[in-house]
Amino acid sequence: MRFNKELDQIKTYEAGKPIELVVREFGVAPEDVVKLASNENPLGTSPRVAETIRAHADKAHLYPDDSMFELKEALSRRFGVPEETLIIGAGSDQILEFASRVKLNLSASVLMSRVTFAMYEIYARQQGATILRTEDWRHRPEQFIPMMEEHRPEIVYLCTPNNPTGDAMRREEVFEILDASDPETLVVVDGAYMEYAAAKDPDFALEPSELLEYPNALYLGTFSKAYGLGGMRVGYGIARPEIVRALMKLRPPFNITTLSLAAAITACGDNAFVEESIRLHREQIGRYEAYARERGFDYIESYTNFITWRFGEELDSSEVADALLRRGVIIRDLARYGLNALRITVGTAEQNDRLFAVMDEVLG
Amino acid sequence: MRFNKELDQIKTYEAGKPIELVVREFGVAPEDVVKLASNENPLGTSPRVAETIRAHADKAHLYPDDSMFELKEALSRRFGVPEETLIIGAGSDQILEFASRVKLNLSASVLMSRVTFAMYEIYARQQGATILRTEDWRHRPEQFIPMMEEHRPEIVYLCTPNNPTGDAMRREEVFEILDASDPETLVVVDGAYMEYAAAKDPDFALEPSELLEYPNALYLGTFSKAYGLGGMRVGYGIARPEIVRALMKLRPPFNITTLSLAAAITACGDNAFVEESIRLHREQIGRYEAYARERGFDYIESYTNFITWRFGEELDSSEVADALLRRGVIIRDLARYGLNALRITVGTAEQNDRLFAVMDEVLG
Repeated sequence: MRFNKELDQIKTYEAGKPIELVVREFGVAPEDVVKLASNENPLGTSPRVAETIRAHADKAHLYPDDSMFELKEALSRRFGVPEETLIIGAGSDQILEFASRVKLNLSASVLMSRVTFAMYEIYARQQGATILRTEDWRHRPEQFIPMMEEHRPEIVYLCTPNNPTGDAMRREEVFEILDASDPETLVVVDGAYMEYAAAKDPDFALEPSELLEYPNALYLGTFSKAYGLGGMRVGYGIARPEIVRALMKLRPPFNITTLSLAAAITACGDNAFVEESIRLHREQIGRYEAYARERGFDYIESYTNFITWRFGEELDSSEVADALLRRGVIIRDLARYGLNALRITVGTAEQNDRLFAVMDEVLG
Repeated sequence: MRFNKELDQIKTYEAGKPIELVVREFGVAPEDVVKLASNENPLGTSPRVAETIRAHADKAHLYPDDSMFELKEALSRRFGVPEETLIIGAGSDQILEFASRVKLNLSASVLMSRVTFAMYEIYARQQGATILRTEDWRHRPEQFIPMMEEHRPEIVYLCTPNNPTGDAMRREEVFEILDASDPETLVVVDGAYMEYAAAKDPDFALEPSELLEYPNALYLGTFSKAYGLGGMRVGYGIARPEIVRALMKLRPPFNITTLSLAAAITACGDNAFVEESIRLHREQIGRYEAYARERGFDYIESYTNFITWRFGEELDSSEVADALLRRGVIIRDLARYGLNALRITVGTAEQNDRLFAVMDEVLG
């Protein structure tokens, strides 16, 4: 059967290996598997959210309120933005997909950093668009701006903080790019890890309301990371109503589940959990920095809930990742991103203990 | 900002009005609102599923197993089909979207019945395809086949049982259309309500394994109706591996939630709940047929969990729907489908009592 030809170019996303697979493949006992590969919140699910889910468990047969009235109201209050600037997605991922589908086609192009979130390319390829990347893996305005001027891409992706490297853009760098952008170029500012950056250094913190000053900016946020709802698939986009109306044309009805909607509404009012997540992270990340220094390899200063260790010639990230996996520790190898590096979610004290112990074993 | 021009034609789906809205707009007490508008399972959530959800409530921070190994295994066993013929979607809706995106573009066309599930048209319009419809609201092979031969549509939609009319195609009618189809035409057989049809009359029951005989058939099923998981968004597609591989290219990672995956796995083994749902439905639907006869209006013989009442000139479906709504009873008016008819989910005995009492009030 014939299918649309732009599909030929699509690589599918490789998800972090599930714990069950490591148990099956390497015979590690499930309780000994530590997964630090998907940037899930090591604090777990907020007890308040878990209570909401239990209270709604017998409502699984009911469709959610498709207007998402209550969640939009909560987000509108939290960010001080009008409700018509909001769209809710099944993860901020889904809003990336909508953005790709409203702006891109076979003659379009997109611009992104050399190393950044894999879904930008995948969604752009689904539309048959041309992928342009800057030379550096850091987001550098001096590389973005000339390429924007030369190619007039339909979408520019700024992932700040950036996944999978963990670095972030300074506020003024983001605004520099926005100021230089063509109003027909959609500038996506993906703040999936923004809560961690904002808590670390206000120079790296962006408010969605500031981006609404620009007619062509789309801010993305998520409940998957600091809010601990990765498995529930809820994210949001904030942009001028003209953009939101276009994205809404592609939103399928009931795009988040009844339980996800209830969970996100509770999470919105659960700042204590976010603060505790950030506190745990700050307490633990120093250990990863110290371990790298001790072992003589590099790390990227992190503005996220994970850290990226960069190896020199003495170590091969794929070999280290594989050796860790066989011992039941799942992390993310960045070889396929062209980096000799590992991305590791900063876990609980116990999970991190385990990772360091297994690393010691592997490195000898 | 400019957007892809095919978006100009898109109408968005109108979801059934949520209970909260009726409370807000008409001042009806929440406990007095009866919603029979969205074909949700009146039995509620299966107690076994609710227990699974409660047991997984503290796993909301974890991404689901993206291979959906266990759910695919369960479906593979249930239908006697190989796992590589299966794809899981956020509702069968999402698989409709994938199908539309793999086959359609600005020069494509799709064929469907005059009155059928609204999302077929919406997803086709998102791709800019031309919409063709048969003259009759029933699915008639003698209307489908000549139009297929004339227009060679990229997709043909057979919704059986059909939503929003409730009628179904005989097995041999489906096979007649498949036999006459061009192998390049994807024939989508949407069996969202198949469990109800199969329980009523084997002449209307299709098995996915039979459709795998055809290189161009895609069967869709869902957990939203007989399995009572409407709010969890889980559906599935079954087709030849070549088709599944193409659809999989558009599946975003983690397209169903961690709790939805767990719920669907439990639901798969919960036949007692499905049987009880069907039993309740059969016990109650006769009351709707009798009420229509008593009041002198028509109904469409139903193979689903809802019934469609058709009015003659003496009644206007929009007026009746509105009068019911003001009294707190939410049903679906089919005026926008070109029918002077109401679609009503067959509820519990108590919900149906309420509907008949309010209808008596409205009709006088």
